[in-house]
Amino acid sequence: MPLPDEFHELARSVNNWGRWGADDEIGTINFITPEKIRQAAQQVTTGKTFALSIPLSKDGIQTGLLPGRINPLRTMLDINRPMLGDPTLFCNTDDMVVMGLQSATHWDGLAHVSYAGRMYNGYPITSIDSDGASRCGIEKITTLVSRAVLLDVATLKGVERLDPGYPISCADLDAAAEMAKVSVTSGDIVLVRTGQAGILDRKPLKPKDKAEYAKPCAGLTLETARWFHQREVAAVAADNFSLEVYPGVPNSMFLPVHLIHIVEMGMTQGQNWYLEELAADCADDGRYSFFLDATPQKFVGGVGTMVNPVAIK
Amino acid sequence: MPLPDEFHELARSVNNWGRWGADDEIGTINFITPEKIRQAAQQVTTGKTFALSIPLSKDGIQTGLLPGRINPLRTMLDINRPMLGDPTLFCNTDDMVVMGLQSATHWDGLAHVSYAGRMYNGYPITSIDSDGASRCGIEKITTLVSRAVLLDVATLKGVERLDPGYPISCADLDAAAEMAKVSVTSGDIVLVRTGQAGILDRKPLKPKDKAEYAKPCAGLTLETARWFHQREVAAVAADNFSLEVYPGVPNSMFLPVHLIHIVEMGMTQGQNWYLEELAADCADDGRYSFFLDATPQKFVGGVGTMVNPVAIK
Amino acid sequence: MPLPDEFHELARSVNNWGRWGADDEIGTINFITPEKIRQAAQQVTTGKTFALSIPLSKDGIQTGLLPGRINPLRTMLDINRPMLGDPTLFCNTDDMVVMGLQSATHWDGLAHVSYAGRMYNGYPITSIDSDGASRCGIEKITTLVSRAVLLDVATLKGVERLDPGYPISCADLDAAAEMAKVSVTSGDIVLVRTGQAGILDRKPLKPKDKAEYAKPCAGLTLETARWFHQREVAAVAADNFSLEVYPGVPNSMFLPVHLIHIVEMGMTQGQNWYLEELAADCADDGRYSFFLDATPQKFVGGVGTMVNPVAIK
Amino acid sequence: MPLPDEFHELARSVNNWGRWGADDEIGTINFITPEKIRQAAQQVTTGKTFALSIPLSKDGIQTGLLPGRINPLRTMLDINRPMLGDPTLFCNTDDMVVMGLQSATHWDGLAHVSYAGRMYNGYPITSIDSDGASRCGIEKITTLVSRAVLLDVATLKGVERLDPGYPISCADLDAAAEMAKVSVTSGDIVLVRTGQAGILDRKPLKPKDKAEYAKPCAGLTLETARWFHQREVAAVAADNFSLEVYPGVPNSMFLPVHLIHIVEMGMTQGQNWYLEELAADCADDGRYSFFLDATPQKFVGGVGTMVNPVAIK
Repeated sequence: MPLPDEFHELARSVNNWGRWGADDEIGTINFITPEKIRQAAQQVTTGKTFALSIPLSKDGIQTGLLPGRINPLRTMLDINRPMLGDPTLFCNTDDMVVMGLQSATHWDGLAHVSYAGRMYNGYPITSIDSDGASRCGIEKITTLVSRAVLLDVATLKGVERLDPGYPISCADLDAAAEMAKVSVTSGDIVLVRTGQAGILDRKPLKPKDKAEYAKPCAGLTLETARWFHQREVAAVAADNFSLEVYPGVPNSMFLPVHLIHIVEMGMTQGQNWYLEELAADCADDGRYSFFLDATPQKFVGGVGTMVNPVAIK
Repeated sequence: MPLPDEFHELARSVNNWGRWGADDEIGTINFITPEKIRQAAQQVTTGKTFALSIPLSKDGIQTGLLPGRINPLRTMLDINRPMLGDPTLFCNTDDMVVMGLQSATHWDGLAHVSYAGRMYNGYPITSIDSDGASRCGIEKITTLVSRAVLLDVATLKGVERLDPGYPISCADLDAAAEMAKVSVTSGDIVLVRTGQAGILDRKPLKPKDKAEYAKPCAGLTLETARWFHQREVAAVAADNFSLEVYPGVPNSMFLPVHLIHIVEMGMTQGQNWYLEELAADCADDGRYSFFLDATPQKFVGGVGTMVNPVAIK
Repeated sequence: MPLPDEFHELARSVNNWGRWGADDEIGTINFITPEKIRQAAQQVTTGKTFALSIPLSKDGIQTGLLPGRINPLRTMLDINRPMLGDPTLFCNTDDMVVMGLQSATHWDGLAHVSYAGRMYNGYPITSIDSDGASRCGIEKITTLVSRAVLLDVATLKGVERLDPGYPISCADLDAAAEMAKVSVTSGDIVLVRTGQAGILDRKPLKPKDKAEYAKPCAGLTLETARWFHQREVAAVAADNFSLEVYPGVPNSMFLPVHLIHIVEMGMTQGQNWYLEELAADCADDGRYSFFLDATPQKFVGGVGTMVNPVAIK
Repeated sequence: MPLPDEFHELARSVNNWGRWGADDEIGTINFITPEKIRQAAQQVTTGKTFALSIPLSKDGIQTGLLPGRINPLRTMLDINRPMLGDPTLFCNTDDMVVMGLQSATHWDGLAHVSYAGRMYNGYPITSIDSDGASRCGIEKITTLVSRAVLLDVATLKGVERLDPGYPISCADLDAAAEMAKVSVTSGDIVLVRTGQAGILDRKPLKPKDKAEYAKPCAGLTLETARWFHQREVAAVAADNFSLEVYPGVPNSMFLPVHLIHIVEMGMTQGQNWYLEELAADCADDGRYSFFLDATPQKFVGGVGTMVNPVAIK
């Protein structure tokens, strides 16, 4: 079943191909100007910081449903090894990791998704090969720093966690922005909270908790793409597995928000961001905007990256 | 040959064990207060950003001299795979990585080094096992954000790159700070530039370039530990393989600055930071202090972490 | 709850420490003589071969219950890459793998298990460190070739698969050997079939199938250790996750057969061997003994190894 | 510069496409019949065994010249971990590995090489993607057991090691077979010894030794392809990095023997086989033919596999 007409209509209306030149590889991140970053820094008034990554551990959120997207598996290369043979001198401890770049808190880069041979800015999909993405690789984003706004839809609705499968609408985003007393403006990074990551606070986290976290989940709907487009949002992230509501639409529309955001708009999107402590603090002081640094790790040709985003208020 | 008396004397004079309590696991990062972070944000005046990581690539700086510390090897899990079997619908591209956490631009955590059974804050070295560091794991550093100061010793000396093996002294640091018109104060992160990473600008980078980059290199000397201690520096990083001068001292003193910084002071230290563009900009505008976010990736039990530090002026 | 007295009594009665010298690192594999191998080759009468490994794939049998023991994850380093830039000339395809050495069909080496500070032949357990096993590493087994005997307990009992949790007794082994018309003799490798791996024939293999395969399972019991000891068996393997019955005994006796086989007897043991086709053939021609090559991959310091055992009749 | 006419002429004359049907995926391994395997077993007269793999270790033969083809890096998942919390009970040790499948002693599968869009048996080269080879994957070789013959060209020439770059001719192979008093017949596996792997006996093996081992090396020449074709050899392996002489021919002929063997003939070929001890024994007893099991690990879609070949005399 092909994608429906209304999808293609939306795609055309939010398409950013060529907007920043035929060679552009970072899309809506272009909305972030030095002036925007200067303003972002002015958001810092108390110096309170929040790290928004979930822990990187072999006991992570991946459950094997996506074979290959393995949890961060860190192993030791050395443990207190006397480098000169004498333990009273220098002893070394080293470690290594193997992990899916999309396995934990991460950004999806603009080469992460394609459809119908379409890739952001019209690059051929063959520009991605076994070496990775020669176009739109994650390393093309030099830095990703801006003002960020938390749209806490869960708190707006008065729940700990939105119902699994709840479709977040434009009206929800507007109401959350109003609650936050903030206007989303050009170059902002928007963080959407569904409360889903609250599941990850359970200790110990059992397989069934991870399954519950993964899906179904509340999330963004197709209609909100225009909302982000109009406001010239630089990037968007959420506290769930898929950013968008899942499942939410018929089969042919599998993850349609990904297609619109990444392919048509060129908007980098984040998943599995841990927003619980930040949200509590925002509710506490009533300030929902802040400085954010969520710069990717510089993986050459990468289609994604783990990230430990830092919010500062 | 045991460590000499003067080493142990220095160790005692800069030792921070217990300073932040018997349970402290982050050492000198405690010098960073919310007020310090607030001041750091005020450093941002133009919104210009600098990412200080070298590229993460299988063609990285490791040459095999340290077997196991492998270059970032990113491979593809999926390339434009039609998830529903139909290429006109959602096509997925995913990647994974295997890498030494100390293979590129990184922080050495406080569990990275021990000697004579000594580990920061007196924790038993057996607290590190095949699961990693149960004490002083890199994830214990929630965020690492502060004002940073660039001490550009190479430019101070009027050279592109300090002579390999050049030992940076306290006088050098003082002179570099004076040139920078900045006082290093409590909670600062200090970036020391030797110019060594300029070698990495050669394209293509050949095996002999990598060997030249790795060693010998100019770097910090033992005497500077007191300099950092007195100024209550939160963390230190350099643009070379070992931070400290290498080789520089007799065998029994193998990497002695590591021992003092990490074990005695509890000072997190960084290596392979790429400072060339930042240094050029500082020389240009005469401003050598700036905001820095160099928060670790949240590797549970990690003894190090790759990092893409972001400086903002 | 400590291990019961009868366990320790059994341990003493089958202990092989020192039997092949204080420096021995391969245990019961010493039973295999050149003469035995010569006889093994004489088992080959038809030239029919059987590979006894399950497929190595990211969609393997591990379900995440043992974090870190990841399924074989093979990724591409190159796909038809023109090495000289010209696709009419040499194009290269290369791959790599990351996997738990115990994740698929494998041997447990003699360094795989210890208890109460006991390791085979009295080696200190500290001989295993971040580099692996300096004693009893899997590479110490130069080759592992011998006559093998299939003891098909499932067919003996007239079932496709033994009941989960069924404890295989000495009487079962005797009856299976009688059915096979074979005497187990010194240096034989014994393959025990429970039928559990028949679950792996289901296509596609679903998570619940893998869970069902993993446990509970029929398997060897503690009493059979003497049976193997008396017959001087060189190595033993089964078509299930744990070789031994699981669960089968109270908590303090967690995997007691492993302790006896590996630590006390020094008997290398195999798991997840796929015996279905071989068993069908044996039932067909009535011949349950054959040549077997199950030589480990030469992992220096390895405590286990993937293996693709080859049976030839 | 395109491949010369004589290359294409040779290609046509030894081409095996369709010989074993349009669906064949194992090529010359089809020459091995059950009867051949039966005869192979009869080669076993003393029961003496030889494992022909080099050690699998992070200190392996790869020097980084081929980024990504990393040495076997085995790390520990557990070291004597008390699984029930009590060290007097079951303590577990587990390990994992990451390695290039072509990094040590290995087989090149039939999907390893292509040129001009040509892949063995006319399969489209697009049959290889990020999942690996859907055609001619290494797992399609169920078992690889046969009689093998050692052609010891180094000993024939009276040298420890053939001169680097020495081109082995048909005459050399004939003379080596004559010295061996053996006729190479249909289904044989041929092992060619250049003596190059003798370099790997140096202890400790230094970077310059590894570089010397890698290249240049003596090896097979293009003309020998017909020799193997006429004799219906099932598979061929050598004790060097590239099997064929390197460098040996002009640029456009980069690794031409690979193209002929793999693409045109469908002949699986092996590299980095350690033949020193076997060769010494053959020289000693004058017997150069033996049983060989070199069955691949069952990597689904793999284009190569590590292998620990076992020769038995």
